[in-house]
Amino acid sequence: MTDTNRPAQGRRIVLRRWPQGLPTAADFSCEYSSIGTPGRGEILVRTLWVSIDGFMVSRIKPEANYAPGVEPGQVMQAYAIGRVEESCADGFEPGDYVFGPLGMQEWVVARAEEPVRKVVAEDLPHSLFLGLLGISGWTAHVGLYAVGQLRAGETVLVSAGAGGVGAVVGQLASLNGARAVAIVGSDEKIELAEREFGYAAAVNRKASDFALRLAQACPNGVDVYFDNVGGELYEQVLEFMNVAGRIVVCGRLANAGLSSSREDIGRRDHNDILVKRLRKQGFVVTDYADQFEAISSELAQWWREGRISLPEDVAEGIESCPEALIRLLQGDNRGKQLVRIMKEI
Amino acid sequence: MTDTNRPAQGRRIVLRRWPQGLPTAADFSCEYSSIGTPGRGEILVRTLWVSIDGFMVSRIKPEANYAPGVEPGQVMQAYAIGRVEESCADGFEPGDYVFGPLGMQEWVVARAEEPVRKVVAEDLPHSLFLGLLGISGWTAHVGLYAVGQLRAGETVLVSAGAGGVGAVVGQLASLNGARAVAIVGSDEKIELAEREFGYAAAVNRKASDFALRLAQACPNGVDVYFDNVGGELYEQVLEFMNVAGRIVVCGRLANAGLSSSREDIGRRDHNDILVKRLRKQGFVVTDYADQFEAISSELAQWWREGRISLPEDVAEGIESCPEALIRLLQGDNRGKQLVRIMKEI
Repeated sequence: MTDTNRPAQGRRIVLRRWPQGLPTAADFSCEYSSIGTPGRGEILVRTLWVSIDGFMVSRIKPEANYAPGVEPGQVMQAYAIGRVEESCADGFEPGDYVFGPLGMQEWVVARAEEPVRKVVAEDLPHSLFLGLLGISGWTAHVGLYAVGQLRAGETVLVSAGAGGVGAVVGQLASLNGARAVAIVGSDEKIELAEREFGYAAAVNRKASDFALRLAQACPNGVDVYFDNVGGELYEQVLEFMNVAGRIVVCGRLANAGLSSSREDIGRRDHNDILVKRLRKQGFVVTDYADQFEAISSELAQWWREGRISLPEDVAEGIESCPEALIRLLQGDNRGKQLVRIMKEI
Repeated sequence: MTDTNRPAQGRRIVLRRWPQGLPTAADFSCEYSSIGTPGRGEILVRTLWVSIDGFMVSRIKPEANYAPGVEPGQVMQAYAIGRVEESCADGFEPGDYVFGPLGMQEWVVARAEEPVRKVVAEDLPHSLFLGLLGISGWTAHVGLYAVGQLRAGETVLVSAGAGGVGAVVGQLASLNGARAVAIVGSDEKIELAEREFGYAAAVNRKASDFALRLAQACPNGVDVYFDNVGGELYEQVLEFMNVAGRIVVCGRLANAGLSSSREDIGRRDHNDILVKRLRKQGFVVTDYADQFEAISSELAQWWREGRISLPEDVAEGIESCPEALIRLLQGDNRGKQLVRIMKEI
């Protein structure tokens, strides 16, 4: 089946070169390319929303990662949601909505199978499937519970607390009876974290009396450190960890400007890990795909009840994707960073 | 009740000062002191054997640790086994044997309660209760199973593999169907580890082609790293860790010469922990005291069946304790380092 209304070409974001240090706009280009035709088992998707996530920075380095990276000349990876325009796959019809790692492109031919999945939105806005009901929400939930084993009454400290994941972590922890404390990068975000993201307290890591403020915000110490940052900040947090505490290694934004993790030089943590019997564990949310549906149901219900939300920071148009990523890495986003590729009619 | 045959004084090892770098003999003194008289609930114990363990080095630093340290002027801490000579405690009789943190002293008055416990030796030599059926055996078992969750068919790599704990880890892992590989500090210990400690292979960390040899010894990578050392060696081992691997932080002998763990500068491990979804966990064996009896029964049975053993490296006399500790920290011991305080008649 062919839709004669579709254009011959679409735009996409291509990685021009591996960044030296933090990525800049010049490391990417926005290019036109022909729109393909789906073969058997494939669908043609028109992208509506692209999700901008911290993991992207690790995909544009030559260093090995848990997933294949982007080579110069390739389309930049991203999770996205889009509308099926043509289908040669059973169970997928034009007009269906799909979610998956579709990349930064206006049009894409994709295989109609995991990890691309159909989205039945019902009353829910589509952008929700990239944030609260997508990678951000799943990451927050899996990190807090499956990995961090947070219990009611405990204190969870969250670095990058006003980011897309952090915004969900604070609300989830608070709804489940824990004390959530955010580490953020500006005084303005303190208010955001406390007012909108469920945090009992938030601390600006750039404050000259940061350690004192952190101590005041965590009067009973820290049971779970949900770490999106790593780096020197981690060493400061170690001082506050309680015996039998858990460190959830979700991201390492502090390394974003390094060309190799071998340059991540600091204090080894063996002494604290041993003395305080800490458990430090890394996780990759896609390992927990079998839990996504259940987590999404729970979060969607809470969203409908008005008990949880995820403010969106929206840039417009495919050409905005690189700048949106740079904003995120600079900590300039407020809540979930998205790019709207096409206005829904 | 008073035994009129006991001397008026006994010798003990006192910490003279906190060591600068690795401890030296001059940091300790061997002093005479009066032998006390047990009060209500107390026993007078004559020490037979003293256990020398890596944890001691962390107790003679001003830095906070998981247990109170030794202040200059105080008796040096140690686990020991001894014979009850006088008792003012219910359930303890002269002639009973007791195990506990009795310190480096020929005679000691102790409270007859946890962590001091009666030892019913039956057919077992008393020294066994300081090694295989004591801290070394418990540490090996708890670290491998409760913390490391080693499974049959997996590979466990053990640093300080020819030490008291390492010698038990190798045999236990091998008996339970895992592949055990030791990292040791000399070629001579390679043979010891492979011949006596159950290791399928052993590698000298001082070899110029260490990484290559380690790769050959671990053809399927490393599932559990039982780490007694930390330091730079840890960073080399990280390269070999499998996805979902466990790092058991049992000791940090590489830090023995540091005056503070803040000087333990190296590569932060957040990238590897995340990319490989590793779990790194510290433990202190005394947290698992409720398992000691069951573990000792299992190990004693295997010892009787000749399936497991722990060679002992024995120094003689209370005055030898500091040198025995220094030997251990230099990696000069072969198996469990003990000091015999009194010959059993």
